[in-house]
Amino acid sequence: MSKLVIVGTVAFDAIETPFGKTDKILGGAATFIGLAASQFNVDASVVSIVGGDFPQEYLDLLANKNIDISGVEIVKEGKTFFWSGKYHNDMNSRDTLATELNVLADFNPVVPTNYRDSDIVMLGNLHPNVQLSVLEQMNTKPKLVILDTMNFWMDCALTELLNVISKVDVITINDEEARQLTGEYSLVVAARKIHGMGPKYVVIKKGEHGALLFHKDNVFFAPALPLEEVFDPTGAGDTFAGGFAGYLAKTEDVSFENMKNAVIYGSTLASFCVEKFGTERMTDLKSKEVHQRLQEFKNLTQFDIELT
Amino acid sequence: MSKLVIVGTVAFDAIETPFGKTDKILGGAATFIGLAASQFNVDASVVSIVGGDFPQEYLDLLANKNIDISGVEIVKEGKTFFWSGKYHNDMNSRDTLATELNVLADFNPVVPTNYRDSDIVMLGNLHPNVQLSVLEQMNTKPKLVILDTMNFWMDCALTELLNVISKVDVITINDEEARQLTGEYSLVVAARKIHGMGPKYVVIKKGEHGALLFHKDNVFFAPALPLEEVFDPTGAGDTFAGGFAGYLAKTEDVSFENMKNAVIYGSTLASFCVEKFGTERMTDLKSKEVHQRLQEFKNLTQFDIELT
Repeated sequence: MSKLVIVGTVAFDAIETPFGKTDKILGGAATFIGLAASQFNVDASVVSIVGGDFPQEYLDLLANKNIDISGVEIVKEGKTFFWSGKYHNDMNSRDTLATELNVLADFNPVVPTNYRDSDIVMLGNLHPNVQLSVLEQMNTKPKLVILDTMNFWMDCALTELLNVISKVDVITINDEEARQLTGEYSLVVAARKIHGMGPKYVVIKKGEHGALLFHKDNVFFAPALPLEEVFDPTGAGDTFAGGFAGYLAKTEDVSFENMKNAVIYGSTLASFCVEKFGTERMTDLKSKEVHQRLQEFKNLTQFDIELT
Repeated sequence: MSKLVIVGTVAFDAIETPFGKTDKILGGAATFIGLAASQFNVDASVVSIVGGDFPQEYLDLLANKNIDISGVEIVKEGKTFFWSGKYHNDMNSRDTLATELNVLADFNPVVPTNYRDSDIVMLGNLHPNVQLSVLEQMNTKPKLVILDTMNFWMDCALTELLNVISKVDVITINDEEARQLTGEYSLVVAARKIHGMGPKYVVIKKGEHGALLFHKDNVFFAPALPLEEVFDPTGAGDTFAGGFAGYLAKTEDVSFENMKNAVIYGSTLASFCVEKFGTERMTDLKSKEVHQRLQEFKNLTQFDIELT
């Protein structure tokens, strides 16, 4: 089984949706990525930073999923990164109500020594220089480096972002961000331009409209499961990335063919994530449920046209 | 092989897109539906109306595809229905520049006698009472009645629309129209409500985001092929419906399992339609090209996760 190292935020979120609102609850990209990857019982380590206000029970929750948290720095006198947002009625758009960087402002990630030979590196959404620093700490060349990012860094740290993008194998990005990064409306053309920036694999996430995986002239599409109701989209993209990375780590196969399965797993896990607030659905998710939903994805997408 | 009768407009379109603009060219729902269905060499008849200004070569074009046009009434002293529209840069929205009903204002469709026992009836977008009149002319109960409609009739003829909807087996509708018809944002919930209005099968078209087929608690998804460039979306929805109806007519199998293949064929043919202006791409489309693109759809969607 491959080792997986994940860098990203471990944070407090406060979320408001048409269905209700939360106080400060467990959130953060690395949290969602780690919880999704833990479905595959891989040897995963989360590298992050929290403040003295971060509850031990949240750390225990990750540790109990067999996630190594020795790389989570605790700044006793500091406060944990906090994000607050409010979703509109269509659940596709949201307003950020508050972003308090707190300890994240001075985050210098340290990859635990025994994870510096990880096969797979998952760079969750963070300042590109922080992502780069994790990459530079690896003692051996990883089999696969996956990067997630967002439009914020395109606006305010584009040079640094392009630098780290040039060093990764896979980028996961949403459709609007792919358009912003390339200036192209067509996602096919955008993916080709991003290939030219470095990544051999480009995953474009389209939220409720699924995700596209591009590699050279090949493309694969994983739909999102049509749901009666999306309760809270927070963390869905990170859960997708965590499922993708976790499946690849478990199967030790980073071929394009196997990545198709990985995006289906990512989409499957994301379909659970949105059913409850924050991490609630992911923390008690049973493998039997995942198995059953994979069958739903098969029913949703598989057809039988004979081509001779 | 099943007989297929199609009612809808045969018309002039004038189209403007970011790529260019056309004079009056061949258009109309029944035209696109018929051209798509003709790919399956089915015994299809188009019921429509045109004016004396309609070129014989356009009628010949349909007849040369083995489409029966004896049900296309020609009003010598009248003018053909004309629609003109301009697409915005994202190709997902458009402005209607002109709608001249002309002969369509007094359209009383007459189904040719030898098509009143058709197995499949495709009711293209028209006033619901015109659609109903075609249904009432059938001598035998069709195996399958498919209805396409649009938001315009929800706004101005809702009672009549609900009446004809209650009498059909399949409805094809786009996502915004499904939401308008039901007052539900979730397409899963909207489909369930539409089931309750009559149709056992509900197809929700999402344009570049593909199409969903609902039947009881089952759902199937056909993506749209990711394209480098959408040249002109006019007729894509009708082409989808024509491919759907044509495939079912050819295979004489209206089961849910076979409808999965039918929506894949519909999506495949629609992916060609948008490559050129109007009907241009559909009139010279070769079965070899269709076959090749079906393979692309397989590559796009089929994965290999073993579930035991």
